[in-house]
Amino acid sequence: MKLGNLHGRAVLIDGDRATDVAAASDGHFGPDPQALFEDWPGFVSWATDAGSAASAPFDEAELGAPVPAPRQVFAIGLNYAEHAAEAGYPPDAMPVTFTKFPSSIVGPDAVVALPEGHVDWEVELVVVIGTRAHRVTREDAWSHVAGLTIGQDLSERITQLQGSAPQFSLGKSFLGFGPTGPWLVTPDEFADRDDLAISCALSGEGMQSSRTSMMLYDVPELLVRLSAVCPLLPGDIIFSGTPSGIGNRRTPPRFIGPDDVLVSEIEGIGTLTTRFTSAG
Amino acid sequence: MKLGNLHGRAVLIDGDRATDVAAASDGHFGPDPQALFEDWPGFVSWATDAGSAASAPFDEAELGAPVPAPRQVFAIGLNYAEHAAEAGYPPDAMPVTFTKFPSSIVGPDAVVALPEGHVDWEVELVVVIGTRAHRVTREDAWSHVAGLTIGQDLSERITQLQGSAPQFSLGKSFLGFGPTGPWLVTPDEFADRDDLAISCALSGEGMQSSRTSMMLYDVPELLVRLSAVCPLLPGDIIFSGTPSGIGNRRTPPRFIGPDDVLVSEIEGIGTLTTRFTSAG
Repeated sequence: MKLGNLHGRAVLIDGDRATDVAAASDGHFGPDPQALFEDWPGFVSWATDAGSAASAPFDEAELGAPVPAPRQVFAIGLNYAEHAAEAGYPPDAMPVTFTKFPSSIVGPDAVVALPEGHVDWEVELVVVIGTRAHRVTREDAWSHVAGLTIGQDLSERITQLQGSAPQFSLGKSFLGFGPTGPWLVTPDEFADRDDLAISCALSGEGMQSSRTSMMLYDVPELLVRLSAVCPLLPGDIIFSGTPSGIGNRRTPPRFIGPDDVLVSEIEGIGTLTTRFTSAG
Repeated sequence: MKLGNLHGRAVLIDGDRATDVAAASDGHFGPDPQALFEDWPGFVSWATDAGSAASAPFDEAELGAPVPAPRQVFAIGLNYAEHAAEAGYPPDAMPVTFTKFPSSIVGPDAVVALPEGHVDWEVELVVVIGTRAHRVTREDAWSHVAGLTIGQDLSERITQLQGSAPQFSLGKSFLGFGPTGPWLVTPDEFADRDDLAISCALSGEGMQSSRTSMMLYDVPELLVRLSAVCPLLPGDIIFSGTPSGIGNRRTPPRFIGPDDVLVSEIEGIGTLTTRFTSAG
């Protein structure tokens, strides 16, 4: 199943057509995309049998964030060895965990006003929680996942790296710094959900290219480690870390400018486009 | 105004009596304590004239978190010079900002199951946002504050301090690690809202004692600095940092044990009691 957010309403997506969840379920589910996570198993059960008779063409550019108001946003740092190396850190015994404050979350085709500073890209696989997960095992972990989407962990490096303790959360939470989308794809849709090509390009130039199988802590392990501390709640999201190729570690460094277009891609999900303006 | 959460219902508190907000407002406000922040100015306007005819005695031990489900929890590190020194950090040009994941928030008289590790106390003034604050000035900052309450930024030091980047967010977000309360007190109730005695005691032994006027970044400055990055949303909370006297830096170190009782106190608010068990 592909699940999107069209003008604030949950829609099932099939190719270039969308079915309004609230209309098709006679109001039993939706329209609020976030509310679906209150009964994710019930929704999946309904959606499996839902017809697409009422589907209509839609414009991908009008989609919003598939998970617009998560209660908790977990973000993982240094989860690909080559990125940890370029960032100057050794791999850790625990996944480095911070947050992107939820007010930073936006959808596909967002236009992000660049704040002063050095704004950098980080394409990431985003995991969406479907059912409460507390102290789960590796074996059970995937069963708590509603689906996967693409995220950009946009980062203003001056704010992030200044001071005596890294400001990961603050430097990555400017307005619009959490593009996600274009839709949520349920795990059953992937041939191999643990090994997906992941890449991003800035204004046509390839910047990052890896596979999610290169994560130091894979999706089940992230759920095990995070849920050992915090209950993961339905509709929470996890930015699972970025591969190497960020702008801050290029020679010379390269940052996002006001007319750049950032295209992020993950195999089996699609592409997430983000535009920028200087009016920060 | 003192605003509490009694069995999940918002109550106005006057001495040892509580007035149910939903009942007294004929359902116009409440009962959900978090929903009041959707129209905080309207609520304050109503509450100012609300009578207490329907008030009833209440048991303080039955109160829940005054802000039970904040969309964003900001937490500030190293905001008192003596604590920054004991923790081994120089004061920063920016307030160190992380999160306590919202699932860690509990109320007064919570019983916290101790996880394995070294659990430490950190009494903090907690600021509750009343109206959306984005890029506010020092002069406007207090007008965005709904009120103040007491918080404990409980911290498991092994998780927090391991690895190459400090795990502030994760090590401080175990279940129950965010006690808050006992109620929200509006800023007008304080003789000097910028200078409040703050202290905590573990099983009767004084551990921390300072004044909020010793903050490196005071409440208006925190709102200026945070809102320069993120919009602060109604019902968001800010743990504003702890003074010196944590257990981890004592000689020998002292951590919380299963039968300890932690009493946190802030002048003009009251006391927040937290108990512990070993069944983590």
